Amino acid sequence: MKKLWILLPVVLVVTSSALAKEGMWLMTQLGDLDLAGQGIEVSAEQIYSPGKTCLLDAVVNMGGASGAFVSPQGLILTNHHVAYGAIQRLSTKGKNYLAEGFVAKSMANELPAPGAYARIITEIRDVTDEVLAAGAKIKDPYERHRAIRKKMSEIEDAERAKGEDVDATVAELYDGLLYHLYVFKRLNDIRIVLAPPESIGNYGSEIDNWMWPRHTGDFTYMRAYVSPDGVGREYSVDNVPYHPKKWLTISTRDLDEGDMTFILGFPGRTNRYATHFDVDYYLNNQYPYTIATDQKLIDIIEGACDTSEVSKIKAAGRTRWIYNGMKNNKGVIRGMQAENFLAEKTAFDNDLQAFVSANRKLRKKYGNVLEEIGKIYEERRATLARERMFTLFGRYGSMPLSRAISVYETAREREKPADERRPDWSENQVERMKRYARFGFMNVYEPFERALLRYQLQSANELPGDQRIKAVDKLIADKGSVDAAVDYLFDGTRMMNRSFVMPLFDSTSAAIEAIDDPMLRFAIALYPEQEASHQQEERRKALQNELDRQYIEMISAKDGLPYPDATGTVRFTLGKVEGYSPRDAVVYKPFTTLTGVIEKNTGKVPFNMPPELGVLEKERDFGIWEDPDLNDVPVAFTHVLDITGGNSGSPAFNSKGEMIGIAFDGNFEALLGDWKFQPKINRTISVDIRYVMFITEKFDHAQWLLDEMGVKTK
Amino acid sequence: MKKLWILLPVVLVVTSSALAKEGMWLMTQLGDLDLAGQGIEVSAEQIYSPGKTCLLDAVVNMGGASGAFVSPQGLILTNHHVAYGAIQRLSTKGKNYLAEGFVAKSMANELPAPGAYARIITEIRDVTDEVLAAGAKIKDPYERHRAIRKKMSEIEDAERAKGEDVDATVAELYDGLLYHLYVFKRLNDIRIVLAPPESIGNYGSEIDNWMWPRHTGDFTYMRAYVSPDGVGREYSVDNVPYHPKKWLTISTRDLDEGDMTFILGFPGRTNRYATHFDVDYYLNNQYPYTIATDQKLIDIIEGACDTSEVSKIKAAGRTRWIYNGMKNNKGVIRGMQAENFLAEKTAFDNDLQAFVSANRKLRKKYGNVLEEIGKIYEERRATLARERMFTLFGRYGSMPLSRAISVYETAREREKPADERRPDWSENQVERMKRYARFGFMNVYEPFERALLRYQLQSANELPGDQRIKAVDKLIADKGSVDAAVDYLFDGTRMMNRSFVMPLFDSTSAAIEAIDDPMLRFAIALYPEQEASHQQEERRKALQNELDRQYIEMISAKDGLPYPDATGTVRFTLGKVEGYSPRDAVVYKPFTTLTGVIEKNTGKVPFNMPPELGVLEKERDFGIWEDPDLNDVPVAFTHVLDITGGNSGSPAFNSKGEMIGIAFDGNFEALLGDWKFQPKINRTISVDIRYVMFITEKFDHAQWLLDEMGVKTK
Repeated sequence: MKKLWILLPVVLVVTSSALAKEGMWLMTQLGDLDLAGQGIEVSAEQIYSPGKTCLLDAVVNMGGASGAFVSPQGLILTNHHVAYGAIQRLSTKGKNYLAEGFVAKSMANELPAPGAYARIITEIRDVTDEVLAAGAKIKDPYERHRAIRKKMSEIEDAERAKGEDVDATVAELYDGLLYHLYVFKRLNDIRIVLAPPESIGNYGSEIDNWMWPRHTGDFTYMRAYVSPDGVGREYSVDNVPYHPKKWLTISTRDLDEGDMTFILGFPGRTNRYATHFDVDYYLNNQYPYTIATDQKLIDIIEGACDTSEVSKIKAAGRTRWIYNGMKNNKGVIRGMQAENFLAEKTAFDNDLQAFVSANRKLRKKYGNVLEEIGKIYEERRATLARERMFTLFGRYGSMPLSRAISVYETAREREKPADERRPDWSENQVERMKRYARFGFMNVYEPFERALLRYQLQSANELPGDQRIKAVDKLIADKGSVDAAVDYLFDGTRMMNRSFVMPLFDSTSAAIEAIDDPMLRFAIALYPEQEASHQQEERRKALQNELDRQYIEMISAKDGLPYPDATGTVRFTLGKVEGYSPRDAVVYKPFTTLTGVIEKNTGKVPFNMPPELGVLEKERDFGIWEDPDLNDVPVAFTHVLDITGGNSGSPAFNSKGEMIGIAFDGNFEALLGDWKFQPKINRTISVDIRYVMFITEKFDHAQWLLDEMGVKTK
Repeated sequence: MKKLWILLPVVLVVTSSALAKEGMWLMTQLGDLDLAGQGIEVSAEQIYSPGKTCLLDAVVNMGGASGAFVSPQGLILTNHHVAYGAIQRLSTKGKNYLAEGFVAKSMANELPAPGAYARIITEIRDVTDEVLAAGAKIKDPYERHRAIRKKMSEIEDAERAKGEDVDATVAELYDGLLYHLYVFKRLNDIRIVLAPPESIGNYGSEIDNWMWPRHTGDFTYMRAYVSPDGVGREYSVDNVPYHPKKWLTISTRDLDEGDMTFILGFPGRTNRYATHFDVDYYLNNQYPYTIATDQKLIDIIEGACDTSEVSKIKAAGRTRWIYNGMKNNKGVIRGMQAENFLAEKTAFDNDLQAFVSANRKLRKKYGNVLEEIGKIYEERRATLARERMFTLFGRYGSMPLSRAISVYETAREREKPADERRPDWSENQVERMKRYARFGFMNVYEPFERALLRYQLQSANELPGDQRIKAVDKLIADKGSVDAAVDYLFDGTRMMNRSFVMPLFDSTSAAIEAIDDPMLRFAIALYPEQEASHQQEERRKALQNELDRQYIEMISAKDGLPYPDATGTVRFTLGKVEGYSPRDAVVYKPFTTLTGVIEKNTGKVPFNMPPELGVLEKERDFGIWEDPDLNDVPVAFTHVLDITGGNSGSPAFNSKGEMIGIAFDGNFEALLGDWKFQPKINRTISVDIRYVMFITEKFDHAQWLLDEMGVKTK
C-alpha cells in the first residue's frame, strides 16, 4: 500500500477551466492549485497554513453545517436554517422567535441555544500509516474494516483526552487511501444574537427549497462563549465571548456576474468516484424500486383518507416527506438519464479496465476489482425486495410497527459493546429518533396504519422462497390470513399511545420483552432476521469499501487523482458568479433583488413578507447596500461552486478574501450534483452579505452588531 | 352625432415608442401610422388598398380565427388548433388523424372538412350615417339599440343577397362612434392538406397553454375550393382550387431579436376603454364572487367523490374547466392589482371628468356620463348573487337542470321573431351547445349532480327578500325542504339520459311543456323570471352601450383617439421580436428550439414527441431551416404585438412583408392584456415559419407543397 502511495502520488488535475469549476479540495491541496491564475488574490497560505493565522481559523463546523466568525467577540454568521432547531426550542407560547425573529439589544440579552456547538480546526494531521497498520495483518475484509474503525476511534479518543474542549475526527479520504485526523476546539456555549423572522429567514420555505430564483434571507447571528480562561465549556453565566484568532471582513464592495469567489465549509457526502455498477444499481434498481413502493405508500395513505379534514391533514403530513424523497430520487434519475450517465461511466470503466489489463503488475493487483464490485451489486439486487421490506417495517411504513422495531433495536444496540455497535449508532442519534417519533404521533391515523401494515405484510408474503421472512410467515400462519394478522397486531397494541411508547426508548431489551403487546412481540420476532440482514450488508459494505479504494488506486494509476469525495471534512471550492439556463429559452440571472421579494409576497406563509420591507423599498432606504447595476438591494446570488449538504452556513468570499455571502442551497436542476458536477447547471445559492447587512441595519436596527463587525454604513 | 364626429375626428396617437408597441389598428388607419419610421419596409398601400391587390387579400377569416393564403392554388396556413375540430370529426376508429397527423400525397387526397370556411375581405365601407339614422328619432335607449341592431342586420342581409358566396358583417367600432361594413367572399369547401400529429401540433397541450417557452408546432395546411366558375360553394367533387388574388411569400431569411414584425388578423374582444366603474366591478365584485362560487362547486364535486376511479375521472373532467376559468379570473385580478389598475383608471376618469366639467358645452353633453355608468354597476352589484344563481342553474351547475333549461330556452328563442331573439342566438350557437351537451354526458355523475343542485337551491334559498326567485321558493315550499326538492327533481327525471335529452334541442316549447318530467317542469317554472332578468340586463347593456360611446367621445375630445377595441374585425399590429422577464432574475429569450422540444419530451401525452424529431436533431438534418445564431431549428418566438383571441392562425410578417410565422397564443403573465397592453410583458407567441417548413420538408416529406409555395430548399 504505502509503496503504491509513493508510486502514485495524488496528482492534482486543474488544467481545463471546466475542471477548475469543480472540486472540493482539501486544505493540504491548496498549494497545488493555481489560485492566482484563477483570479484569487489571497494566497494559499492566507487561506490555510498550519500554525499561522489564516482564513480557516474563522471557519467553524456546526455539526452537519458550517459558519464563520465575523467579529473579534466570537460573533458567528450561519444560516437561519442551521439555527432553526435552536430558535424553535427557545420559543415559548408567549414568544415565537421563529415567527417574530429575535434581536438582542446587547450581549446580555443573547439567548443560550442548548445543543448548538461550533468547532474550530486546530490541527490537520496525516494518520494514514497508523490507521492502516491496524488492519495490515487481518485477512477477512470485515474484520480488517472493524479493526481500522476501532483504530480511528482510538486515535480520536486519545486526542479528546487532551483537553475538556478538544474534539477530534479521523476522516477516511479516497475510500481509505488517506486518513486525516482533524483536531477541533469545541465551543458548547452558543447563543442566538439575531435571527430574522421566518418571513425573511425562511421566506419561500419548502416551496422555494432547491429553487432558483430565491429570495430567502437565510442567515442568523450566533455568538460563541467560553470560560474566563478560554475553555469551550457548556453554558454558564460566567462565560465570556470567545476571541477567535481570525474573523472575517464583511465586504462592502460591489459584486458582479463573472467575479471569482470561493467557499470554505464542511460538505457532507458525494459519490464522484462511483463505478458504473453503482450507477446501474441506483438508476435501474434502487431508485425505481423505492419510487414504486413510495408511490404505493402514498396511494394507500390517500386511499385510506375519509372525508374528514383531520384525515386529510394527517395524510398530507405523512405523504409530504415521501413525496419529497420521491422528487429527489426522480430528479437524480432524470439527471442520470439526461446526462447519459450510465453510458459515460461504463465507457470510463471499460477504459480503466483496459488500462489495468494492459499492465501485468496492475492486472494482478486490480484485474478483478470491477468484477468484484459487480458481484456485490448482484447480491444487493437479489435481496432488494426483502431489504426494502425491512426498511418499510423499520422506518417508512405503518408507524406502530416501525416504532416497536425502533425501541427494541435501540435497546439491543445500547446493550452491545461499543465496538460492535452499528457505525451510525449514538445516543445523539437516539435523541433524534425520539424527537422524530414524538413529532410523528401528530400524523398517526389508525386507518392509514392498518392499510399500510396490510400492504407490507402482503408484500412480504409475496417474496420468493429464498427471500422469505420467517417471522412474517409464522405470524400469517398463526393468525390464518394477512387481514387476521393485521387485526391481531392492532387490536391489542398500545404502540399508538405516545405516553406508552416514549419511555420505551430508554428501556432495556429484557423489559421490552416482558411486555405483553402484539406489536412489540412481532418486532421482537422480526429482530433476528433483520439483524442478520443488517450484518450481511455491513460485511458487503466493508468489502466494497476496500474494492472502492482499489478502484480509486486504479484511477490514480491511470489519470492521477483530483480531490477526494466529500466526507464532512473542511473543503475549499472556487468559481465565478454566474447564472444559468435551466431549460430552452430560459435564462436565470445570478442575482435576485428586494423587488423580487416583494413580487413573491402573497401575505400568506411562506410568502408573507414583513410589510416594513415594502416601505424600505418604496422609500429606497437602502443605505450603502444598493447594488449599482441592479439599482436595488441584492438578496441572493448563484455561483459555480462545488458544494453539497453540510456546506450550509459556509462563508462565501470574494477574490480578496472578504465575506460576500453565506451559502445555503443548491439548485434543483443539479440534483445529480453529488454524483457528477455539471458546470453548466450546478450552482451554489448564497444569501448576499449586502442583504444580510441591509436587514441587520434597516430592518432590525442592530447598529451595535454593525459596529462590532467594523462595518461602516456611511 | 355627425357634427361631433367632424368636430372630433379620430386622431391617431402614435408618438411614443411604448404606444407604438400597442394597438390593433383598422385598415383605414394604416395611412396615418408612420410605418417606415417604425422600420416596416412595405407601405400602407401594399398592406391594404381598396381595389388594388394587397397583403390583406391573402388574409382570411375562419370563424373565430384567422389564416392566410400561401400559394396561388388556395393553400391556407392556419393553426392546428383552429383545424382541430375538423381533424377530430374526420377521424374514425381506423384513422386517428389527431394522433397520426395527415399528409395528402396530392390534391386528390385532401380531406373535405365540413363546417370549416374561409372568408376573404372584398370591401370595407363606412356605414355610420345609415346605421345611426335608424335610431336617430327614438328616445328610449333600449328601443334605439334594437333599431340600430336591426338596421345592421338589414345592411348585412342586403349585401348577402348580392351573391351566393357573399357574406357581410356590420361592425360597431368605438362602442358606436363608427360602423363599418365588411363584405366577404365566403369559401365553404375547405379541405385538410397537411396536419402534423398532435404530438407536434398540440405538443404540451393544456399544460403549456398560455405558457412561454413554448414548443408547439401549431400549424395545419388547408385548401379552399370553389366551383369551376369561382363561386365559394359547399363541397363538390367538381370544385377546383381557389385562386386568390394574393398569396404570401414564405420567408427563408434569418429572424433575430429586435427585428420589426407585424400581424394581420381578426382579434375578438378587448376592454381597453373600460371606465374605473367597469374595473371596480370586475375586480371587486364579479371576479371574486365568481371565483368564490367556482371554488364552492369544485369543493362540492371533489367532496362528492367516492373512492372509485370513475368518480375521480368524472370529477377531474368536471372541475378542469372550472379550475381553468378560476385561473384566468385570478390572473386578471392579480394583473389588475399588480398594475394598480383601478387607481390608474380612477385617476384617468377624474381627469376626464375635470376636463369635461371645465367646458360648458361638454359639461352639458357629458357631465353625467360617468355617474350614469356608475349607477348601472350599482344595479348589477345589487343583483349579482341572483344573476349568478341563474348562471349556475343554466350553465355551470348541476347538469340535468342546466340541460333542461337549455332545451326549453332554445325552443322559446327559436320561436321568437328573429329581431326579438337574443343577439348571440343562432342555430350555429345551438349546434355548439348540443356538441357541448353530448360531450358533457361523459362527466355526469349523479352524486355530484345531486350535491350541486342541493347547494344551488340552498344558495337561492338564502337570497334576500327583494332578490328571491319565486320558482325556487315555490318548489321548496311544495316539497317541504331543499333535500326533499332535490330528491323530487332527481327521482323522476330522465334528464341524465342522453338519448332522451338530445332530441329535445330540436323540440318545440309546447312539446317540452307536455312532457311529465320534474326537472323539465322546474326549468319551465324558472323561465319567466330568468327571461325577465335577461331582458333587464339587455336593457342595461343597451343603455351602457350609449354611455360607453359618450365616454369614448369624452376621451376623443380630450386626448384624441387611437385604435378602437377589438370587435372581430381585421386589424394590423406591429412590434419587435423580443423576449421578456416574467419575474425577478428570470429572462425568457424570444426563440425556442428543436433542442427544447427534445428536452420536454417524456414520451407521454402531451409531451410525446415523435422519435423521428430526435433522429433529425441527432443527424442535424435541418435543411436550410437552421438558425445561424441558435445553431438549431427555431420552433416558436415571442414578439411585442397586440393580439387577442381570434388572432389564432394570423400570419406574422417581417418588415419586407414575408411570412415569418403563425400567431397562436399569448402569454400567461399578460392575462390583463385585454384590459391593458403592458409592453414589458405582453407577448404574442408565433410558431416560426422555419419550424413549419422543417416539419413539412423533413418530417412529413411534403415536397410538393414546398414546390407549390415556391419555397427553394436548396
